[in-house]
Amino acid sequence: MLNRVRSAVAHLVSSGGAPPPRPKSPDLPNAPSPQTAAPPEAPRSPPATAGSGSAAPAKTVKARASFSRPTFLQLSPGGLRRADDHAGRAVQSPPDTGRRLPWSTGYAEVINAGKSRHNEDQACCEVVYVEGRRSVSGAPREPSQGQGLCFYYWGLFDGHAGGGAAEMAARLLHRHIREQLKDLSCWSSQKEVTHESLVVGAIENAFQFMDEQMARERRGHQVEGGCCALVVVYLLGKVYVANAGDSRAIIVRNGEIIPMSREFTPETERQRLQLLGFLKPELLGGEFTHLEFPRRIQPKELGQRMLYRDQNMTGWAYKKIELEDLRFPLVCGEGKKARVMATIGVTRGLGDHNLKVCSSTLPIKPFLSCFPEVRVYDLTQYEHCPDDVLVLGTDGLWDVTSDCEVAATVDRVLSAYEPNDPSRYKALAQALVLGARGTPRDRGWRLPNNKLGSGDDISVFVIPLGGPGSYS
Amino acid sequence: MLNRVRSAVAHLVSSGGAPPPRPKSPDLPNAPSPQTAAPPEAPRSPPATAGSGSAAPAKTVKARASFSRPTFLQLSPGGLRRADDHAGRAVQSPPDTGRRLPWSTGYAEVINAGKSRHNEDQACCEVVYVEGRRSVSGAPREPSQGQGLCFYYWGLFDGHAGGGAAEMAARLLHRHIREQLKDLSCWSSQKEVTHESLVVGAIENAFQFMDEQMARERRGHQVEGGCCALVVVYLLGKVYVANAGDSRAIIVRNGEIIPMSREFTPETERQRLQLLGFLKPELLGGEFTHLEFPRRIQPKELGQRMLYRDQNMTGWAYKKIELEDLRFPLVCGEGKKARVMATIGVTRGLGDHNLKVCSSTLPIKPFLSCFPEVRVYDLTQYEHCPDDVLVLGTDGLWDVTSDCEVAATVDRVLSAYEPNDPSRYKALAQALVLGARGTPRDRGWRLPNNKLGSGDDISVFVIPLGGPGSYS
Repeated sequence: MLNRVRSAVAHLVSSGGAPPPRPKSPDLPNAPSPQTAAPPEAPRSPPATAGSGSAAPAKTVKARASFSRPTFLQLSPGGLRRADDHAGRAVQSPPDTGRRLPWSTGYAEVINAGKSRHNEDQACCEVVYVEGRRSVSGAPREPSQGQGLCFYYWGLFDGHAGGGAAEMAARLLHRHIREQLKDLSCWSSQKEVTHESLVVGAIENAFQFMDEQMARERRGHQVEGGCCALVVVYLLGKVYVANAGDSRAIIVRNGEIIPMSREFTPETERQRLQLLGFLKPELLGGEFTHLEFPRRIQPKELGQRMLYRDQNMTGWAYKKIELEDLRFPLVCGEGKKARVMATIGVTRGLGDHNLKVCSSTLPIKPFLSCFPEVRVYDLTQYEHCPDDVLVLGTDGLWDVTSDCEVAATVDRVLSAYEPNDPSRYKALAQALVLGARGTPRDRGWRLPNNKLGSGDDISVFVIPLGGPGSYS
Repeated sequence: MLNRVRSAVAHLVSSGGAPPPRPKSPDLPNAPSPQTAAPPEAPRSPPATAGSGSAAPAKTVKARASFSRPTFLQLSPGGLRRADDHAGRAVQSPPDTGRRLPWSTGYAEVINAGKSRHNEDQACCEVVYVEGRRSVSGAPREPSQGQGLCFYYWGLFDGHAGGGAAEMAARLLHRHIREQLKDLSCWSSQKEVTHESLVVGAIENAFQFMDEQMARERRGHQVEGGCCALVVVYLLGKVYVANAGDSRAIIVRNGEIIPMSREFTPETERQRLQLLGFLKPELLGGEFTHLEFPRRIQPKELGQRMLYRDQNMTGWAYKKIELEDLRFPLVCGEGKKARVMATIGVTRGLGDHNLKVCSSTLPIKPFLSCFPEVRVYDLTQYEHCPDDVLVLGTDGLWDVTSDCEVAATVDRVLSAYEPNDPSRYKALAQALVLGARGTPRDRGWRLPNNKLGSGDDISVFVIPLGGPGSYS
């Protein structure tokens, strides 16, 4: 592990060195499948205009009418049908025969139990080459001289209200990140601004540009619904985990659990949502109140005292009920049933530009944030062993599986394989998906403890942090 | 420790029990001194009108022209003069002859080295009786039958731009908390709403009402400036630490440091401030930009690319400089020099209603929050020993003393005293203040390592968590 880190770091800091060979076909199954023909490459260098919202690094893409699965699954038409079968819910993984995913990453997925017509999760795993704009020293360079760098990329996209946004994000978000990272090469050390904070900023802005692209293209190209996005970028010794939504990432290291994300839901983002409703009451359309109450208030309770919380409070206090408190609360419900404007249960992600309050024209998008929280993990600070992994999962996994249960499965599955067997991470991903799906029994999918398994789409990446990476 | 917790809990939950004796003069030096005549008690039960902002639990108070120190210091006129002497900077503590502070709390303070005319820190330590509005069971009760409870209270108030706000908060904030806690007795268990969350909500609202009272009375009564507020409430086995400003609280338990607050400064609250400037641009008055840049931009750089951060970003990215980016940044500077609107270095607290941008009529108060962050520590979850303490300090302490240095001083000083010697906590508070002040040398106050000591006002409470509490 440390070797690959050191060589990559050594490469970038040697400003006079030749650009690294662009990975042509490492362990990267990025050939377009019939279902997901990749759009042409983005134009190389439109001037960055962050803040103006007009940059469009990835070209306009055609509408995607048909159902698709990640290209790296290499599904045949028959395989695609099996992957789309709600009754069988067969677990899908990349074939043993093809090229392995970078770092011997494990992947597995399964379709929902009938919640939506297709599997609305999507995934992407790529090695991405970034051509620099200028040299590290700050002197302008001709494009032909551009000094580049590579990053490794994994993305999970959990769609809702249609699969369009998740498909588009899976195809294009890493290209937005690549575009933003071009600025990295014109960086020279400045007060406050670290290299790490530039990568974080690049990822944050890439999410915003991706969301803006969806807004522009939603009419002509059927970008249906929205999606949560959980993305990992590995660059120069550091792992960046960016999350916008309710997927989750944890590192399991020597049995210890290190959370690498948090979920963004109406409950966890209550104060942000309430503050927006308070500062911009027009966004509530006279239909909602930004205050929260423990239960819906009845008209006959006007004038009585009731517990409430506002945007400034984490605790509860009493107030006298006034007329506008009878409106529906902006945030209501608990746990998986919590909703913004009685409609959506996740508060960050991409897309949802057309989402309206049920039976209303009131848009919900102003309350949703497309910005991820980015956490950074320095791989060089610890000598990782082959059993140390980063696990990414959509909520289908985490709804029925605790962090500790995942850590136990990591231990159980990996210990059954030789440390240098690269197939162990795929087996682990499959075990995690199977463990969350359960088996058909008693008119439902049930776990061994007889609780209900997840009826949602379930997708899992297992990224080894000290494993037998095949890219070296 | 556990005993006092259990008996207090047992008392409140015994709904049929007689109201507890109101502490008349426990270890509570709350007799008004000539300098700080306490205002009359607040009227008992104005109807709570949280949210409307009109409740005024504490009566209007007279203007306070003269300099004052906490009543529990029991300073004579000569003592007051010594406490006000910037040259000598004598450390002040409650006298050994008087009643001890509750829980044998240690306290020490020292005036600044000339930064302001008087010591603008203030402190308060009280045992407060709360008369309930109704019984725990929810049935209305006559006031005469009211079932009450006691809480212990410590407050540190670090004033700026005058001492008025800090003095007023030291005299009245606990009364606002008492008023809010009256609602606790009408609580019956409801979904989501725990007893703890009601205490948190009561403290949060008390801060707001205190701030509103300052706004109402600022003209007639010279409530100058503003203040940070760091408050501890002990109630029914739990310690609530509420912080609005840049004071700090830590628990040192068996040598381990447990942070009990975080600081609210232009740097830590950058995104909140920027979001407000973005959503309400009129608050920037055309003078400021909500964007942050690593350095001030020159007009000749218009059109060039520059690093920036907005309200959504933790990282940095590039943008093309536009005309309005030439405005002064809403948040600028680093560390102790960070400022909002080039004026104030702390972003939460009480007061500051008249604060304007320098040479402008633009008000700064809209960017300041009066709401504390409240952290809860359950005293019953751990058997504390006499060396376990909660240390509160204004920034005068923390500017030159790390958490670890405080923990080392805790160990060094307490180990020099018998565990049951109640004077050890005062000695510890004095040692902490002295260690931050230093000694006069080389035309300044210097620490043993020859670095500059703090020239600010310094105030410290040391609250024993398992010590020889004198209140039992």
